[in-house]
Amino acid sequence: MDHGLLDHDAIQDHYLPEAAWCYGCGRLNEHGFHLRTFLEGEVTVTRFTPHPYHIALPGSVYGGLIASVIDCHSTGTAAWAAMRAEGSDPATVSAPRFVTAALHVDYLRPTPMGEELEVRGRVKEMTERKVIVLSELWAAGEVCARGEVVAVRVRPAS
Amino acid sequence: MDHGLLDHDAIQDHYLPEAAWCYGCGRLNEHGFHLRTFLEGEVTVTRFTPHPYHIALPGSVYGGLIASVIDCHSTGTAAWAAMRAEGSDPATVSAPRFVTAALHVDYLRPTPMGEELEVRGRVKEMTERKVIVLSELWAAGEVCARGEVVAVRVRPAS
Repeated sequence: MDHGLLDHDAIQDHYLPEAAWCYGCGRLNEHGFHLRTFLEGEVTVTRFTPHPYHIALPGSVYGGLIASVIDCHSTGTAAWAAMRAEGSDPATVSAPRFVTAALHVDYLRPTPMGEELEVRGRVKEMTERKVIVLSELWAAGEVCARGEVVAVRVRPAS
Repeated sequence: MDHGLLDHDAIQDHYLPEAAWCYGCGRLNEHGFHLRTFLEGEVTVTRFTPHPYHIALPGSVYGGLIASVIDCHSTGTAAWAAMRAEGSDPATVSAPRFVTAALHVDYLRPTPMGEELEVRGRVKEMTERKVIVLSELWAAGEVCARGEVVAVRVRPAS
Protein backbone atom coordinates (compact mmCIF):
# COMPACT_ATOMS: atom_id res chain seq x y z
CA MET A 1 0.00 0.00 0.00
CA ASP A 2 1.26 3.44 -0.83
CA HIS A 3 0.01 5.36 2.18
CA GLY A 4 2.46 3.92 4.66
CA LEU A 5 -0.17 2.52 7.02
CA LEU A 6 0.35 -0.95 8.32
CA ASP A 7 -2.58 -3.02 7.15
CA HIS A 8 -2.66 -5.15 10.28
CA ASP A 9 -3.32 -2.07 12.40
CA ALA A 10 -6.79 -0.68 13.05
CA ILE A 11 -7.22 3.04 12.55
CA GLN A 12 -8.20 3.30 16.23
CA ASP A 13 -4.67 2.17 17.15
CA HIS A 14 -3.50 5.50 15.75
CA TYR A 15 -5.83 7.93 17.52
CA LEU A 16 -4.14 10.25 19.98
CA PRO A 17 -4.64 9.07 23.59
CA GLU A 18 -7.04 11.94 24.33
CA ALA A 19 -9.23 10.76 21.43
CA ALA A 20 -9.12 7.07 22.39
CA TRP A 21 -11.73 6.90 25.16
CA CYS A 22 -14.84 6.34 23.04
CA TYR A 23 -17.24 3.74 24.48
CA GLY A 24 -17.56 2.25 21.02
CA CYS A 25 -14.02 2.27 19.69
CA GLY A 26 -11.65 3.75 22.25
CA ARG A 27 -8.76 1.45 23.06
CA LEU A 28 -8.45 3.14 26.49
CA ASN A 29 -12.11 2.70 27.57
CA GLU A 30 -12.06 -0.43 29.68
CA HIS A 31 -15.87 -0.76 29.62
CA GLY A 32 -16.33 -0.23 25.89
CA PHE A 33 -16.68 -2.36 22.78
CA HIS A 34 -13.14 -1.77 21.49
CA LEU A 35 -14.35 -1.67 17.90
CA ARG A 36 -11.46 -1.76 15.43
CA THR A 37 -11.65 -0.73 11.80
CA PHE A 38 -9.30 -2.20 9.23
CA LEU A 39 -8.55 -1.28 5.67
CA GLU A 40 -8.92 -4.36 3.48
CA GLY A 41 -8.22 -3.49 -0.12
CA GLU A 42 -10.63 -0.72 -1.04
CA VAL A 43 -13.13 -1.25 1.77
CA THR A 44 -13.00 -0.78 5.51
CA VAL A 45 -14.08 -3.60 7.80
CA THR A 46 -15.15 -3.70 11.45
CA ARG A 47 -16.07 -7.01 13.08
CA PHE A 48 -17.88 -7.47 16.36
CA THR A 49 -19.62 -10.35 18.08
CA PRO A 50 -22.45 -9.11 20.33
CA HIS A 51 -22.69 -10.38 23.87
CA PRO A 52 -25.64 -12.72 24.58
CA TYR A 53 -27.50 -9.89 26.30
CA HIS A 54 -27.28 -7.51 23.32
CA ILE A 55 -30.70 -8.57 22.12
CA ALA A 56 -33.78 -6.79 20.83
CA LEU A 57 -36.50 -9.38 20.57
CA PRO A 58 -35.02 -12.76 21.54
CA GLY A 59 -32.81 -14.12 18.75
CA SER A 60 -32.06 -10.78 17.10
CA VAL A 61 -29.40 -8.16 17.80
CA TYR A 62 -30.31 -4.89 19.50
CA GLY A 63 -30.72 -2.07 16.98
CA GLY A 64 -28.90 0.42 19.19
CA LEU A 65 -25.85 -1.83 19.16
CA ILE A 66 -26.03 -2.05 15.37
CA ALA A 67 -26.20 1.76 15.22
CA SER A 68 -23.20 1.95 17.55
CA VAL A 69 -21.07 -0.38 15.44
CA ILE A 70 -21.98 1.51 12.26
CA ASP A 71 -21.25 4.81 13.99
CA CYS A 72 -17.69 3.98 15.07
CA HIS A 73 -17.01 2.06 11.87
CA SER A 74 -17.91 5.19 9.94
CA THR A 75 -15.78 7.64 11.90
CA GLY A 76 -12.95 5.12 11.57
CA THR A 77 -13.53 4.87 7.83
CA ALA A 78 -13.47 8.66 7.56
CA ALA A 79 -10.12 8.72 9.38
CA TRP A 80 -8.74 6.03 7.06
CA ALA A 81 -9.90 8.02 4.06
CA ALA A 82 -8.28 11.22 5.32
CA MET A 83 -5.00 9.44 6.06
CA ARG A 84 -4.93 7.99 2.57
CA ALA A 85 -5.85 11.25 0.90
CA GLU A 86 -3.05 13.01 2.73
CA GLY A 87 -0.53 10.21 2.34
CA SER A 88 0.02 10.33 6.09
CA ASP A 89 2.41 7.93 7.76
CA PRO A 90 1.22 6.76 11.21
CA ALA A 91 4.82 6.46 12.30
CA THR A 92 4.95 10.25 12.31
CA VAL A 93 1.30 11.50 12.23
CA SER A 94 -1.59 10.41 14.46
CA ALA A 95 -4.87 9.50 12.80
CA PRO A 96 -7.35 12.38 12.58
CA ARG A 97 -10.48 12.07 14.70
CA PHE A 98 -13.91 12.43 13.17
CA VAL A 99 -17.20 12.72 15.03
CA THR A 100 -20.69 11.94 13.79
CA ALA A 101 -22.92 14.77 12.61
CA ALA A 102 -25.69 12.52 11.25
CA LEU A 103 -26.37 8.80 11.43
CA HIS A 104 -28.90 6.89 9.37
CA VAL A 105 -29.53 3.15 9.66
CA ASP A 106 -31.99 1.07 7.65
CA TYR A 107 -32.74 -2.23 9.37
CA LEU A 108 -33.45 -4.57 6.47
CA ARG A 109 -34.12 -7.74 8.44
CA PRO A 110 -33.55 -9.03 11.98
CA THR A 111 -29.82 -9.46 12.62
CA PRO A 112 -29.35 -12.96 14.05
CA MET A 113 -27.67 -13.45 17.43
CA GLY A 114 -24.73 -15.83 17.80
CA GLU A 115 -22.95 -14.55 14.70
CA GLU A 116 -19.99 -12.31 14.13
CA LEU A 117 -21.16 -9.03 12.61
CA GLU A 118 -19.09 -7.65 9.78
CA VAL A 119 -19.54 -4.05 8.72
CA ARG A 120 -18.07 -3.07 5.38
CA GLY A 121 -17.73 0.57 4.44
CA ARG A 122 -16.77 2.89 1.64
CA VAL A 123 -16.63 6.61 1.09
CA LYS A 124 -19.53 8.19 -0.77
CA GLU A 125 -18.35 11.82 -0.67
CA MET A 126 -15.39 13.55 0.85
CA THR A 127 -14.13 17.04 1.50
CA GLU A 128 -11.25 18.09 3.74
CA ARG A 129 -13.59 18.52 6.69
CA LYS A 130 -16.43 16.07 6.03
CA VAL A 131 -16.70 12.45 4.89
CA ILE A 132 -19.94 10.63 4.07
CA VAL A 133 -19.59 6.90 4.67
CA LEU A 134 -21.86 4.12 3.39
CA SER A 135 -21.86 0.80 5.23
CA GLU A 136 -23.39 -2.65 5.04
CA LEU A 137 -23.74 -4.81 8.11
CA TRP A 138 -23.47 -8.51 7.32
CA ALA A 139 -24.39 -11.47 9.54
CA ALA A 140 -24.70 -15.12 8.57
CA GLY A 141 -24.14 -14.31 4.90
CA GLU A 142 -26.82 -11.63 4.56
CA VAL A 143 -26.89 -7.85 4.62
CA CYS A 144 -29.03 -7.08 7.66
CA ALA A 145 -28.62 -3.29 7.88
CA ARG A 146 -27.30 -0.39 5.86
CA GLY A 147 -25.80 2.80 7.26
CA GLU A 148 -25.05 6.29 6.03
CA VAL A 149 -23.01 8.54 8.29
CA VAL A 150 -21.85 12.12 7.94
CA ALA A 151 -18.53 12.35 9.79
CA VAL A 152 -16.91 15.68 10.57
CA ARG A 153 -13.26 16.18 11.38
CA VAL A 154 -12.38 17.45 14.83
CA ARG A 155 -10.04 20.40 14.67
CA PRO A 156 -6.90 19.96 16.79
CA ALA A 157 -6.90 21.91 20.03
CA SER A 158 -4.94 25.11 19.49
CA MET B 1 -56.74 10.35 30.54
CA ASP B 2 -59.28 8.57 28.45
CA HIS B 3 -57.26 5.60 27.29
CA GLY B 4 -57.19 3.80 30.60
CA LEU B 5 -53.40 3.69 30.90
CA LEU B 6 -51.90 4.62 34.22
CA ASP B 7 -49.72 7.63 33.64
CA HIS B 8 -47.16 6.59 36.25
CA ASP B 9 -46.44 3.42 34.29
CA ALA B 10 -43.95 3.25 31.47
CA ILE B 11 -45.10 1.59 28.28
CA GLN B 12 -42.32 -0.97 28.73
CA ASP B 13 -44.05 -2.16 31.92
CA HIS B 14 -46.83 -3.43 29.64
CA TYR B 15 -44.84 -5.41 27.07
CA LEU B 16 -45.43 -9.13 27.14
CA PRO B 17 -42.58 -10.97 28.92
CA GLU B 18 -41.29 -12.41 25.63
CA ALA B 19 -40.96 -8.86 24.28
CA ALA B 20 -39.28 -7.47 27.42
CA TRP B 21 -35.65 -8.59 26.93
CA CYS B 22 -34.39 -5.66 24.85
CA TYR B 23 -30.93 -4.44 25.86
CA GLY B 24 -32.20 -0.89 25.66
CA CYS B 25 -35.63 -1.06 27.26
CA GLY B 26 -36.40 -4.59 28.37
CA ARG B 27 -37.32 -4.80 32.03
CA LEU B 28 -36.12 -8.43 32.09
CA ASN B 29 -32.62 -7.80 30.66
CA GLU B 30 -30.40 -7.56 33.71
CA HIS B 31 -27.50 -6.09 31.71
CA GLY B 32 -29.50 -3.46 29.82
CA PHE B 33 -30.35 0.21 30.18
CA HIS B 34 -33.94 -0.32 31.37
CA LEU B 35 -35.14 2.69 29.41
CA ARG B 36 -38.70 3.64 30.32
CA THR B 37 -41.01 5.80 28.25
CA PHE B 38 -43.78 7.80 29.88
CA LEU B 39 -46.71 9.68 28.46
CA GLU B 40 -46.70 13.22 29.80
CA GLY B 41 -49.58 15.17 28.37
CA GLU B 42 -49.23 15.00 24.62
CA VAL B 43 -45.55 14.05 24.48
CA THR B 44 -43.63 10.95 25.44
CA VAL B 45 -40.59 11.25 27.68
CA THR B 46 -37.64 8.94 28.34
CA ARG B 47 -34.93 9.94 30.80
CA PHE B 48 -31.52 8.35 31.18
CA THR B 49 -28.28 9.31 32.87
CA PRO B 50 -25.28 7.84 31.05
CA HIS B 51 -22.61 6.03 33.02
CA PRO B 52 -19.25 7.82 33.27
CA TYR B 53 -17.78 5.48 30.67
CA HIS B 54 -20.44 6.25 28.04
CA ILE B 55 -18.24 8.87 26.44
CA ALA B 56 -17.26 9.80 22.91
CA LEU B 57 -14.53 12.38 23.18
CA PRO B 58 -13.99 13.14 26.88
CA GLY B 59 -16.81 15.30 28.24
CA SER B 60 -19.43 14.34 25.66
CA VAL B 61 -21.86 11.43 25.47
CA TYR B 62 -21.26 8.54 23.08
CA GLY B 63 -23.32 8.90 19.90
CA GLY B 64 -24.21 5.22 19.83
CA LEU B 65 -25.77 5.58 23.28
CA ILE B 66 -27.77 8.58 22.08
CA ALA B 67 -28.97 6.53 19.10
CA SER B 68 -29.92 3.71 21.47
CA VAL B 69 -31.98 5.96 23.75
CA ILE B 70 -33.76 7.52 20.76
CA ASP B 71 -34.37 4.05 19.30
CA CYS B 72 -36.14 2.59 22.34
CA HIS B 73 -37.88 5.86 23.10
CA SER B 74 -39.35 5.76 19.61
CA THR B 75 -40.58 2.19 19.68
CA GLY B 76 -42.08 2.98 23.07
CA THR B 77 -43.73 6.10 21.70
CA ALA B 78 -45.16 4.07 18.83
CA ALA B 79 -46.63 1.60 21.32
CA TRP B 80 -48.15 4.44 23.36
CA ALA B 81 -49.67 5.89 20.22
CA ALA B 82 -51.17 2.56 19.18
CA MET B 83 -52.62 1.97 22.63
CA ARG B 84 -54.22 5.41 22.62
CA ALA B 85 -55.57 5.06 19.10
CA GLU B 86 -57.14 1.75 20.00
CA GLY B 87 -58.36 2.84 23.43
CA SER B 88 -56.63 -0.21 24.90
CA ASP B 89 -56.65 -0.84 28.61
CA PRO B 90 -53.40 -2.34 29.92
CA ALA B 91 -55.35 -4.16 32.59
CA THR B 92 -56.66 -6.40 29.86
CA VAL B 93 -54.41 -5.88 26.79
CA SER B 94 -50.60 -5.96 26.67
CA ALA B 95 -48.82 -3.12 24.89
CA PRO B 96 -48.03 -3.84 21.24
CA ARG B 97 -44.37 -4.21 20.35
CA PHE B 98 -42.80 -2.17 17.60
CA VAL B 99 -39.36 -2.64 16.10
CA THR B 100 -37.22 -0.14 14.24
CA ALA B 101 -37.16 -0.17 10.45
CA ALA B 102 -35.15 3.04 10.08
CA LEU B 103 -33.33 5.30 12.50
CA HIS B 104 -32.00 8.77 11.78
CA VAL B 105 -30.16 10.94 14.30
CA ASP B 106 -28.81 14.44 13.75
CA TYR B 107 -26.19 15.33 16.33
CA LEU B 108 -26.58 19.09 16.72
CA ARG B 109 -23.90 19.67 19.33
CA PRO B 110 -21.84 17.61 21.79
CA THR B 111 -24.12 16.18 24.50
CA PRO B 112 -22.52 16.99 27.84
CA MET B 113 -21.64 14.23 30.29
CA GLY B 114 -22.84 14.37 33.89
CA GLU B 115 -26.39 15.37 32.95
CA GLU B 116 -29.67 13.50 32.79
CA LEU B 117 -30.74 13.12 29.19
CA GLU B 118 -34.38 13.74 28.42
CA VAL B 119 -35.83 12.57 25.14
CA ARG B 120 -39.19 14.02 24.17
CA GLY B 121 -41.18 12.48 21.35
CA ARG B 122 -44.26 12.91 19.25
CA VAL B 123 -45.89 11.10 16.36
CA LYS B 124 -45.30 12.50 12.88
CA GLU B 125 -47.30 9.94 10.91
CA MET B 126 -49.19 6.83 11.83
CA THR B 127 -50.89 3.90 10.17
CA GLU B 128 -52.07 0.69 11.80
CA ARG B 129 -48.75 -1.01 11.09
CA LYS B 130 -46.22 1.85 11.06
CA VAL B 131 -45.52 4.89 13.24
CA ILE B 132 -42.99 7.62 12.45
CA VAL B 133 -41.69 9.24 15.63
CA LEU B 134 -39.83 12.54 15.95
CA SER B 135 -37.69 13.12 19.03
CA GLU B 136 -35.54 15.76 20.65
CA LEU B 137 -32.79 14.85 23.07
CA TRP B 138 -32.26 17.50 25.73
CA ALA B 139 -29.33 17.88 28.12
CA ALA B 140 -28.47 20.83 30.35
CA GLY B 141 -31.28 22.89 28.85
CA GLU B 142 -30.34 22.46 25.19
CA VAL B 143 -31.48 20.23 22.36
CA CYS B 144 -28.37 18.22 21.54
CA ALA B 145 -29.78 15.71 19.04
CA ARG B 146 -32.88 15.10 16.97
CA GLY B 147 -34.21 11.71 15.93
CA GLU B 148 -36.63 10.35 13.36
CA VAL B 149 -37.56 6.69 13.62
CA VAL B 150 -39.80 4.48 11.51
CA ALA B 151 -41.27 1.90 13.88
CA VAL B 152 -43.12 -1.15 12.58
CA ARG B 153 -45.54 -3.24 14.58
CA VAL B 154 -44.58 -6.83 15.29
CA ARG B 155 -47.38 -9.19 14.36
CA PRO B 156 -48.33 -11.52 17.20
CA ALA B 157 -47.08 -15.08 16.81
CA SER B 158 -49.91 -17.19 15.43
